[in-house]
Amino acid sequence: MKLFLGIDDENFLRTEKIPMTKREIRILTLALAQANDAEIIVDIGAGTGSLSIEAAKFSPDGNIFAIEKNPDAIEVLMKNIKKFSADNITVINDEASNALKNFSTIDVAIIGGSGGYLEKILDNVDEKLKIGGRIAANFISIQNLSTCLDWLRRHENYHYDAIQVQINRLKKIGRYDIAQAVNPIYILTATKND
Amino acid sequence: MKLFLGIDDENFLRTEKIPMTKREIRILTLALAQANDAEIIVDIGAGTGSLSIEAAKFSPDGNIFAIEKNPDAIEVLMKNIKKFSADNITVINDEASNALKNFSTIDVAIIGGSGGYLEKILDNVDEKLKIGGRIAANFISIQNLSTCLDWLRRHENYHYDAIQVQINRLKKIGRYDIAQAVNPIYILTATKND
Amino acid sequence: MKLFLGIDDENFLRTEKIPMTKREIRILTLALAQANDAEIIVDIGAGTGSLSIEAAKFSPDGNIFAIEKNPDAIEVLMKNIKKFSADNITVINDEASNALKNFSTIDVAIIGGSGGYLEKILDNVDEKLKIGGRIAANFISIQNLSTCLDWLRRHENYHYDAIQVQINRLKKIGRYDIAQAVNPIYILTATKND
Amino acid sequence: MKLFLGIDDENFLRTEKIPMTKREIRILTLALAQANDAEIIVDIGAGTGSLSIEAAKFSPDGNIFAIEKNPDAIEVLMKNIKKFSADNITVINDEASNALKNFSTIDVAIIGGSGGYLEKILDNVDEKLKIGGRIAANFISIQNLSTCLDWLRRHENYHYDAIQVQINRLKKIGRYDIAQAVNPIYILTATKND
Repeated sequence: MKLFLGIDDENFLRTEKIPMTKREIRILTLALAQANDAEIIVDIGAGTGSLSIEAAKFSPDGNIFAIEKNPDAIEVLMKNIKKFSADNITVINDEASNALKNFSTIDVAIIGGSGGYLEKILDNVDEKLKIGGRIAANFISIQNLSTCLDWLRRHENYHYDAIQVQINRLKKIGRYDIAQAVNPIYILTATKND
Repeated sequence: MKLFLGIDDENFLRTEKIPMTKREIRILTLALAQANDAEIIVDIGAGTGSLSIEAAKFSPDGNIFAIEKNPDAIEVLMKNIKKFSADNITVINDEASNALKNFSTIDVAIIGGSGGYLEKILDNVDEKLKIGGRIAANFISIQNLSTCLDWLRRHENYHYDAIQVQINRLKKIGRYDIAQAVNPIYILTATKND
Repeated sequence: MKLFLGIDDENFLRTEKIPMTKREIRILTLALAQANDAEIIVDIGAGTGSLSIEAAKFSPDGNIFAIEKNPDAIEVLMKNIKKFSADNITVINDEASNALKNFSTIDVAIIGGSGGYLEKILDNVDEKLKIGGRIAANFISIQNLSTCLDWLRRHENYHYDAIQVQINRLKKIGRYDIAQAVNPIYILTATKND
Repeated sequence: MKLFLGIDDENFLRTEKIPMTKREIRILTLALAQANDAEIIVDIGAGTGSLSIEAAKFSPDGNIFAIEKNPDAIEVLMKNIKKFSADNITVINDEASNALKNFSTIDVAIIGGSGGYLEKILDNVDEKLKIGGRIAANFISIQNLSTCLDWLRRHENYHYDAIQVQINRLKKIGRYDIAQAVNPIYILTATKND
C-alpha cells in the first residue's frame, strides 16, 4: 500500500462541533512519534479521525485503534475511514480508560483529546506502553500541557520533548498574500525507557 | 488631559467590512513611533479610527489627522471620535496623496492602509516628513511589506526597524485557558535622518 | 518631565547572567497595566531594571519601587537608574515578601521574576493591592504561567487577561531582511475588583 | 529499506558557517512536497545535506540529487551521507543552473538555498519539472519569499500554498520548561499543472 503523509484538511468530512487537528500538526505529531515504525497505534480522543486516518496512511502496516467516546464524533469518524479506505483502523466507541484495558501492548499512543481525564489516561497508557514506545500528545490548553509536563517529570523513565507550533497560512486576496494565523498547538512527544 | 494607551478593542465601534488594528499592535506601533512626542501625526488609511484615537490619547498635546478615503469608514470613524471625545483629531475624507499636499511638515506618519498606492504614499510622506520624523507602518501582506522594505533601502537617509508581532490570546473556556491566535502583523518603523 | 515609552534595548547596561525584558514586552506590559495611571508601582524581580526605568519614564509622576534580592543585579540596576536619571525609582534590595510588608497600598505590581516563590508573592501583593489596582506579570515558563492562572482562577475578584507575545525582528543581512525570533513571553494582566 | 522521517538535528554533522534546516521544517517540507512519492528529487542548495538525507530516508525508492556549489558544504554533506548510509543520494558540486541541465525530468525540487539566483533557479526548475511535480522552497528572507510569490503568480499553471512556521522548543531548566524560539521559516509548496 502506498504511504502518504499530509492529507489536505478539506478532504476530511467534519462537523462544526468537533475541532479537527490541522494538517501541519498531524504531520509533525506522527513524524515525531515515529508512527510509521509502529505495530499498535492508539489514537485517544480520535474526534473526526483525521489523526487516525493520517496514521493509517503513514503506517500502512500498522494497526490503528481510534478511541472516541462521543457518538456524534463516531459517525463522522466512520465516514472518514470509509472515504479514505483506511482498512487498518479499528474504531472503539468507549472511554479511553475502558478501551485501553483490552490492549496487551501499545507502540504509539496519540492523545488528541482527553475530556478532562488526562492524568488517568496517561496512567492507563503507561501500563500498556512498550519500552521504546512513544506518547505523542497535542495540547491547546495551558492546563493540560502543564498536567502532562508534571506527569512526565514524575515519571523519570520517560524522555520528553515539547514544542509549540504556530502556523500562519498565506491566503491569496487579490494581488496580496496575507498571513492568517492558525491557533497554536503544543506537541509533546515522550519515549518510554527501561 | 489624561494620557492613555491601550484601549480595549471592544470599546471601539466597528463595521464588519473594515478591519481594525488590534490593541497590542496599536500600543506597539505608537510607542515605537514615539507618537507621544509629536505635534503633527497623520494616520493614513485611518479606517475605523482606532489608531487615530489611541494616538490622540497617547499624545494629548499632538494634532492627529485621520486620513481616509472610504466614506463608509468615515462614518464609523466620526462616531468613534465622538465616543472617545478625541478633540485633537481632524478627519480628512480624501485620498492620501491629496490630503498630504496640505501639510507643511509632519512629525509622525502612521500607515495603516494604503489602498494599493503604498509607494506613492511613501513618496508623499517623505516630502513632508521632518528630519527626525518617523514613519510607522503596519502590514498584513507580504507584498506591501516587501514594497516598503525596498523603498526604505533605496532611501538611505531612513533608518528602519521591522518586527513581526504574533499575539495569542488565552481564552477562558470552562477550566481551561486556550490560546487563540490573532493574525500576525509586521510593524515597520523608520526615522528620517539628514 | 517628558513621558517616554519604548527605550532601545541597547541603551541599557546589562550583565550576561541576568536576562532582560525586551523592549516590545516592556511596552506591552506597562501599557496593558496602565502603569502611566499609577502612584505606587512595585517591580518585583527588577533585575537590570529595564522595566522599572521604562515605568519611571512612562509614569513620570508615579513612584516606582524596584525590588530585587540578587546583589549582582542591584549593581547594574543602580547604574541604569543613574544613566537614565530615573529619579522616581527607589531600589529595595530584599526578598519580595519582606519588601512588600512596608507598603500600605499598591496601584500596580509588575512581576518580572519570582525566584520560585510566585504563589507567595501573589498572596503578598494581593494584601496590598488597591481595589482597581493591576498586576502585570511576565512568564517564560509553563510552570509559572500555570501557577499564576490557577491563583487567579481561585481569586475570583480578579479579572485577568493573558496573551502570548512572539516577536520576530527582521535583521538586515546584505540585501535581505531575515526574521530572527525573540523568545516568546506570556503577559498576564489582572485587575482587582471589589 | 526502512522509511524514516524526522531525524534529530543533533545527529547531523555541522559546520558553523552553514545554516541547517531544522527538524520540524524538514518534516513539513518533505511531507507537503509529497517527497515520498517521487522518483527524482533535486535538493538545490543542499548545504550540510540534512534535507537530502531526510528525503533519502522518507523516499527510500527515490533518487535524490544534492546540488551544492560551496566546496566547504560539500565536505560536510559527504560525511553526513556516509554517516546515514544514504546510498540513494548523488552529490553534484556545481551551480544549480548548470546542474539542472543534465536532468530530463524532475518530480520534486526542494529549494533550500538560492545564493541570490532564485528567479533563475525557478526558471530552470520549471523547464524540467513534470506535470504534477512539486516545488518546495524554504525562505528566511522577505525578499526571496516575495520573489518566489511573484514568480508563482506570473506562472499561472502552478498552484501554490505558503505557510510560515514558527516553532518554540520547551527547554528544561531545573523545574521549569521554558520556550526557546527557533527562527521562523516560510515554506512554499507549488504543484505544476498542465
